[in-house]
Amino acid sequence: MTTDARRRHDPGVRGFASDNYAGVHPEVLAALALANGGHQSAYGDDDYTAHLQQTVRSHFGARAEAFPVFNGTGANVVALQALTDRWGAVVCAESAHINVDECGAPERVGGLKLLTVPTEDGKLTPELIDREAHGWEDEHRAMPQVVSITQNTELGTCYTVEEVRAICEHAHERGMKVHLDGARIANAAASLDVPMRAFTNAAGVDVLSLGGTKNGMLFGEAVIVLDPGAVGAMKHLRKLSMQLASKMRFISVQWDALLSGDLWLRNARHANAMAQRLAEGVKSVDGVEILYPVQANAVFARLPNEVSERLQKRFRFYFWDEAAGDVRWMCSFDTTEEDVDGFVAALREEMGR
Amino acid sequence: MTTDARRRHDPGVRGFASDNYAGVHPEVLAALALANGGHQSAYGDDDYTAHLQQTVRSHFGARAEAFPVFNGTGANVVALQALTDRWGAVVCAESAHINVDECGAPERVGGLKLLTVPTEDGKLTPELIDREAHGWEDEHRAMPQVVSITQNTELGTCYTVEEVRAICEHAHERGMKVHLDGARIANAAASLDVPMRAFTNAAGVDVLSLGGTKNGMLFGEAVIVLDPGAVGAMKHLRKLSMQLASKMRFISVQWDALLSGDLWLRNARHANAMAQRLAEGVKSVDGVEILYPVQANAVFARLPNEVSERLQKRFRFYFWDEAAGDVRWMCSFDTTEEDVDGFVAALREEMGR
Amino acid sequence: MTTDARRRHDPGVRGFASDNYAGVHPEVLAALALANGGHQSAYGDDDYTAHLQQTVRSHFGARAEAFPVFNGTGANVVALQALTDRWGAVVCAESAHINVDECGAPERVGGLKLLTVPTEDGKLTPELIDREAHGWEDEHRAMPQVVSITQNTELGTCYTVEEVRAICEHAHERGMKVHLDGARIANAAASLDVPMRAFTNAAGVDVLSLGGTKNGMLFGEAVIVLDPGAVGAMKHLRKLSMQLASKMRFISVQWDALLSGDLWLRNARHANAMAQRLAEGVKSVDGVEILYPVQANAVFARLPNEVSERLQKRFRFYFWDEAAGDVRWMCSFDTTEEDVDGFVAALREEMGR
Amino acid sequence: MTTDARRRHDPGVRGFASDNYAGVHPEVLAALALANGGHQSAYGDDDYTAHLQQTVRSHFGARAEAFPVFNGTGANVVALQALTDRWGAVVCAESAHINVDECGAPERVGGLKLLTVPTEDGKLTPELIDREAHGWEDEHRAMPQVVSITQNTELGTCYTVEEVRAICEHAHERGMKVHLDGARIANAAASLDVPMRAFTNAAGVDVLSLGGTKNGMLFGEAVIVLDPGAVGAMKHLRKLSMQLASKMRFISVQWDALLSGDLWLRNARHANAMAQRLAEGVKSVDGVEILYPVQANAVFARLPNEVSERLQKRFRFYFWDEAAGDVRWMCSFDTTEEDVDGFVAALREEMGR
Repeated sequence: MTTDARRRHDPGVRGFASDNYAGVHPEVLAALALANGGHQSAYGDDDYTAHLQQTVRSHFGARAEAFPVFNGTGANVVALQALTDRWGAVVCAESAHINVDECGAPERVGGLKLLTVPTEDGKLTPELIDREAHGWEDEHRAMPQVVSITQNTELGTCYTVEEVRAICEHAHERGMKVHLDGARIANAAASLDVPMRAFTNAAGVDVLSLGGTKNGMLFGEAVIVLDPGAVGAMKHLRKLSMQLASKMRFISVQWDALLSGDLWLRNARHANAMAQRLAEGVKSVDGVEILYPVQANAVFARLPNEVSERLQKRFRFYFWDEAAGDVRWMCSFDTTEEDVDGFVAALREEMGR
Repeated sequence: MTTDARRRHDPGVRGFASDNYAGVHPEVLAALALANGGHQSAYGDDDYTAHLQQTVRSHFGARAEAFPVFNGTGANVVALQALTDRWGAVVCAESAHINVDECGAPERVGGLKLLTVPTEDGKLTPELIDREAHGWEDEHRAMPQVVSITQNTELGTCYTVEEVRAICEHAHERGMKVHLDGARIANAAASLDVPMRAFTNAAGVDVLSLGGTKNGMLFGEAVIVLDPGAVGAMKHLRKLSMQLASKMRFISVQWDALLSGDLWLRNARHANAMAQRLAEGVKSVDGVEILYPVQANAVFARLPNEVSERLQKRFRFYFWDEAAGDVRWMCSFDTTEEDVDGFVAALREEMGR
Repeated sequence: MTTDARRRHDPGVRGFASDNYAGVHPEVLAALALANGGHQSAYGDDDYTAHLQQTVRSHFGARAEAFPVFNGTGANVVALQALTDRWGAVVCAESAHINVDECGAPERVGGLKLLTVPTEDGKLTPELIDREAHGWEDEHRAMPQVVSITQNTELGTCYTVEEVRAICEHAHERGMKVHLDGARIANAAASLDVPMRAFTNAAGVDVLSLGGTKNGMLFGEAVIVLDPGAVGAMKHLRKLSMQLASKMRFISVQWDALLSGDLWLRNARHANAMAQRLAEGVKSVDGVEILYPVQANAVFARLPNEVSERLQKRFRFYFWDEAAGDVRWMCSFDTTEEDVDGFVAALREEMGR
Repeated sequence: MTTDARRRHDPGVRGFASDNYAGVHPEVLAALALANGGHQSAYGDDDYTAHLQQTVRSHFGARAEAFPVFNGTGANVVALQALTDRWGAVVCAESAHINVDECGAPERVGGLKLLTVPTEDGKLTPELIDREAHGWEDEHRAMPQVVSITQNTELGTCYTVEEVRAICEHAHERGMKVHLDGARIANAAASLDVPMRAFTNAAGVDVLSLGGTKNGMLFGEAVIVLDPGAVGAMKHLRKLSMQLASKMRFISVQWDALLSGDLWLRNARHANAMAQRLAEGVKSVDGVEILYPVQANAVFARLPNEVSERLQKRFRFYFWDEAAGDVRWMCSFDTTEEDVDGFVAALREEMGR
């Protein structure tokens, strides 16, 4: 069997289901080969992970330290454990990924209590935080020790720099730390047109989950500790949370490919631009309602379920709330203008039947 | 900066520290590109993971099912959780990786109690198991529900097929399940010169941690369920254990590269052969004692600490028990005859000073 | 120092803060002495615990089995663990004690994910349950395996027998089990004027937390398994949850005092009657609003905070929602008519200032 | 049914199975009535618990603080959690109760890794501790943060004051804390003829599990924090560990009965004296070997199993290691000289058959 005979999929097919349906960016893939060959110390004591620390500091300030991990669940649960005592609780939006999409990993692995708040658009505010941020002395209550926000949110919306800063100040005044789930942080930076530091370390965030997979990596995320005083033995915590890669050089070199130049930003800008193009196209189709401001690479829309179902036979995408007729369309670094235009045309066609 | 400028290590340097100091086998690396391009469903619903099931069944029988995960800690803790109730305990060798090298992940993530037994050579026997396999009705005791063995062991020794079968029969008669930690299972199969099935499903093992990283993968292991009746909702368990890869196609295609042909076996045979060559060479050096039978890719030896320390300045390797003067030398798929011969020559030189 | 010199409190002072501010009923206290003297096997293998099984079966049917535990948190967390796999989740009211008053014990000790639903009056319905009871196949979601209801609720309301039955049928149809948190189950039975079995085993509840402390015990609750097929090794689960009493005879004999005759019901009826008297009295005071139907031993009311604060200097009670001006007044087995009348008079006086 | 008809056991029967087969000391039982009547704040905010703090300080120094809990498992697991980070491990004797008799509660509830060391007589030494106290920087290893010793040990032996001090100094020099499991601490103090402080706070112990149940209480133990700087939010930790009693006055008043005078010491001295009498008697019986120094209220002996089995039909006691013919005979506060003499006579009789 030739190597090519092992290709089992059609690389020409793309959809709008998720930014992690995309593969790996060619520059990232190429970087893997660079790091290959010879022996490098395992578990992060390699030259690529050492270099990553410098790169991360150029983005997040001189105190930042990167702890590469495998996936987003791992990044979030390691980060939140680092910021909490055994009795700690995490204030987050009801729609937060850590609440609805981790099969309970924060609770089960970290023993964390999530104190959830309903939001309009996935974004917390100081006022919303206060609904759960109280009762620190009350032993019957899990102690609120962290506020966790997602940038951009699961609903494709972005916190402004000022909004993040206000949350951090509010949390810190109450003795709480701030965690930012940045699974799509690059899209947020691209959307706000500011460096990532503007709404992380410069705004007061203590620990960050830095997302690489949705930005074009093969696998890999990182916990970025912005305030070293806020955490303890991170390496032990990563290991016991089963997030320590032995051949870590292959995560770190992917980070290098993204972060040393501007690939991270190019990928995010492109995905965002495709979502804007998609939103523009959709607005021209009667009967389809766009649900949230399109501030990153996601478009949420409401349309008749039967139309969605017909459309799903032509393009992969997910219902978000089937009862309401809500769907989610995600763009990624490899989405093309033709993909978008073809999708809008198909949508118009199906709506018109 | 050119791409090559991003190479930060010397690919010509190798040592004997660990088989995960090696990189990725070129055929595995090439396979990654094959799986790239286009969109594939995330979280294992892709064509490569589907195909992996067939491949795995060709190795482990028609009932086998593979659950790719990120690393060995994850594979072991997912597997052991799958086989235990909340009150379950795991009988294992005191030297088992799950006991000494996981920063307590089995206890912390899985709430597992390990019932450890000292062994001579890392291998359990029915008699040794019985030291801890009792008291199932006693609520004060964690209930022994699983026997976990490592093949090959942390000490470079191999269970024979008969030894595994005897353990499985013994365990099953007592209502316990058997887990095999196969972080280096390929080396064991190569050493025993039998298919992997011979000492897994055919011998009665219920769930297997299949090791890929040390066999030449970039990252990735798999939990192989051999007896589907012994486990519950594996996908949920993998997810909550933070071991679910979004772009799983890139783990599965690596498995394909190893397992569809004989690359897994070639890699293992080569590493084993290098360890044999190393052992032979070492035997010719006066004053160096080989500690355990060399049945896989590891050589354990005892020599004066000052010699080891001088040698470590020339080649990377680890002390195993510094107080005793014990060291561990690991060979990997990319160890060359020249590496071995050079190392033996250096050893002879340092011993002779 | 004489024994009496060790009395450090005024036994004549009572308030409306909580039914666990009350002491122990004299008949229960007397029973302790009965069980004293001589040696009895520890950990539940004693004559009193054996007898308790019969008593419990007379209340809850021939299949019921009682597992005495220390406290309500313990009863709930043991019960919920018994009904869930490692990947299981519990649907409950947002106001449920397990969600708001256990410092995260279900999450931390049991690794349980709570899927909470806002309610009007603390009561779930099949419709409300369905908001969270879905997605059993979705590994990203904690799997809904149990519905937990509280009878009577934290808001002093009672489910009717029909309401409980509808919930149980709904849950069972979806493959879920039902847990009933009966910290105040006696008050509910008294209020509904039915035996406890009517809304537990006869209605389809699988496991019950039976509350003794608020019903007049010194300490002690019990997990009552109504469907033995729904659970595993309960004794192990109780032990590892740190709820196994060594001198268990002294919990069981208290249960005997309550349950062998009608003391459980007398205590509950009295507390409920005092709450009715209190509600009647309060209704006669202008400007005080009663918030929920008074169906057990709690009265929730809304009145000006400054009045509440003046009143708290005379009688102990708690704010329930200080921002809204809501307070909770609890009656217990030892609340007297004079207590109630005096409190109403004081309330009228303070409202009139 | 009269109250007396509810007595279901023969208060004249005693054995040598366990000190928690005994009931409650009459002075302790009487104290419960004292604390009854009226309302007292729940959860430890009562007059008896407040007073307990003074009493405890008279025993354990001005910085000591008592946290009453339900049982010994709870005391130990709360104490050990208080002294460890999420990545912490506990060095203890292989025979320690926390290792062999808690159904894995330390691992499951606390996520604690136990690093066990075999001992001759249940006692750790600095040398034995060093077998596991190393590798603090190694993320693959659970970090040794606490040494836990049992006084007196599970084998009925006592650490001298000097031995405890040496362990504490050794641990503290290495940055570890010391926990003392004092389930039978009163027996140790009686045996050593020193105040409890001599081998706890004065010797450097950081946190203590103070045992009440085996010393004559109905139920109840306490975590005594000796070094407040070594722990965090103890009240939250107790609550989430499901060890918070609502009617705590009834635990505290029992402590008052034991500790305010010398009842704790009288009970312990008596039990120890009975064990000495038993050991003396046993020595006069040919063919029975006493296994460990009798330094508290336990006698371990080796004799033919068939003799033990015949004897067990006349008196309750347990095999300790049935394969070896080892048994354990425990004395308690209510063991009488007649009990002992009768037992020795029976032993002599059964040995002579």
